[in-house]
Amino acid sequence: MITTVQNKQIRQVIKLKKSSRERKRTGLFVAEGLRIFREIPEEQRAKVFVSSDFLKLHGEELKGIPFEEVSPKVFREISDTETPQGILSLVKMKQSTLSEILKRSGSSILLLENLQDPGNLGTLIRTGEGAGVSGIIMSRDTVDIYNPKVIRSTMGSIFRVPFTYTEDLAETVEYLRQQSVHVYAAHLNGTDYTDESYDKISAFLIGNEGNGLTDRIAALADKRIRIPMEGRVESLNAAMAGGLLMYEARRQKKGGS
Amino acid sequence: MITTVQNKQIRQVIKLKKSSRERKRTGLFVAEGLRIFREIPEEQRAKVFVSSDFLKLHGEELKGIPFEEVSPKVFREISDTETPQGILSLVKMKQSTLSEILKRSGSSILLLENLQDPGNLGTLIRTGEGAGVSGIIMSRDTVDIYNPKVIRSTMGSIFRVPFTYTEDLAETVEYLRQQSVHVYAAHLNGTDYTDESYDKISAFLIGNEGNGLTDRIAALADKRIRIPMEGRVESLNAAMAGGLLMYEARRQKKGGS
Repeated sequence: MITTVQNKQIRQVIKLKKSSRERKRTGLFVAEGLRIFREIPEEQRAKVFVSSDFLKLHGEELKGIPFEEVSPKVFREISDTETPQGILSLVKMKQSTLSEILKRSGSSILLLENLQDPGNLGTLIRTGEGAGVSGIIMSRDTVDIYNPKVIRSTMGSIFRVPFTYTEDLAETVEYLRQQSVHVYAAHLNGTDYTDESYDKISAFLIGNEGNGLTDRIAALADKRIRIPMEGRVESLNAAMAGGLLMYEARRQKKGGS
Repeated sequence: MITTVQNKQIRQVIKLKKSSRERKRTGLFVAEGLRIFREIPEEQRAKVFVSSDFLKLHGEELKGIPFEEVSPKVFREISDTETPQGILSLVKMKQSTLSEILKRSGSSILLLENLQDPGNLGTLIRTGEGAGVSGIIMSRDTVDIYNPKVIRSTMGSIFRVPFTYTEDLAETVEYLRQQSVHVYAAHLNGTDYTDESYDKISAFLIGNEGNGLTDRIAALADKRIRIPMEGRVESLNAAMAGGLLMYEARRQKKGGS
């Protein structure tokens, strides 16, 4: 049983939680909680840490799975929650490829440029799964998808929605258009999103929380669309905007009224 | 100039930020930032604190408005942000009445039961303004709308969307139905929300993040509606669910395709 935070493995967990660079270096990320533990595909499970309290209560969850036992005190140090469930996993990263995403027949594709809020990204992944997207493509300057706050807010969808980072979003947009994907830019100057028809393969470009899409990327889209806003609202939350677009595409595909 | 956090007024600001009870006792809440300062209706402005730095840069914003100058060091103590803009206001609470909300001809009414996440409530107020709701009605156990995190995430919509707390949500739902409002419960067991027609006055009941609506409240609705979800998503984020319903009602009212 590990009883000190000076333990080498514990020090690595703490480093992986904090540092995007350490995650990239090792190809590992941290997922805390029982619910998400159950969602981790076996081939992505690298290591499991459990507190002694967890073992007593939920030992059967770990049948056939190697794990490290940690004292409750040490577990509180690596946990992000005030009342930890007592299980934390190290998980191997796994990205999809662009062509894997294109092969799927989802309701739409989500393209994110420089999204920065971890909660927004997590919510978009969760909502994207609900709306049945083919996948999510992120510019390289988008917040790290393996950030613990993103993982938590996906509620497990991180393991089910195909996603990839692209080194060059502009190039990706052009490639998608060559593949007959209709690319829409969510933009304050655009036509009402409900007046468009998303019966072809559609992709939605969503920009940074404070600044929206860059002019360069917006200019590459086939069309700019806008979510109409009453009152004096200047913009919607980025996750909300993405969710509304993905669900509108889904509604049309399903032949909603 | 106030140069110590021991100052009585500064101590009150700190108390108002932390304590919902203190806010209720005084009828005041805290709104930080320049953007939101500009949105505060004059009759709700109780007091304005600015840092010496702010005065130098934006003194003209305060023309004709009484304010208290605070040293930058003290301002950092009362600020929620890492790089404070240097302006913080005490604002008088102002609720609408149920009949004021009913008199408006918005796209829908939002009814919240025991919503607990401040970010979710703030996002719903902001999105609600965008979707053109008549107003937002909250059960008394919903998170305090004057919580600084709620205020911040409304991006100013707090001053433009009519809202009220109800002592008895069940009674309010029944009253709304008597007034010919069609009440829908967002529920996992319901019909697809896009198959309903929201051409009458519609109200949407959204429940607590973890537990959804109580059976007691869901049973009072005219109908249960559901946002369809692909994959293995168990539920959407409460703010997202509310946003999708409000914008679907808006789309239908505007005669979207």
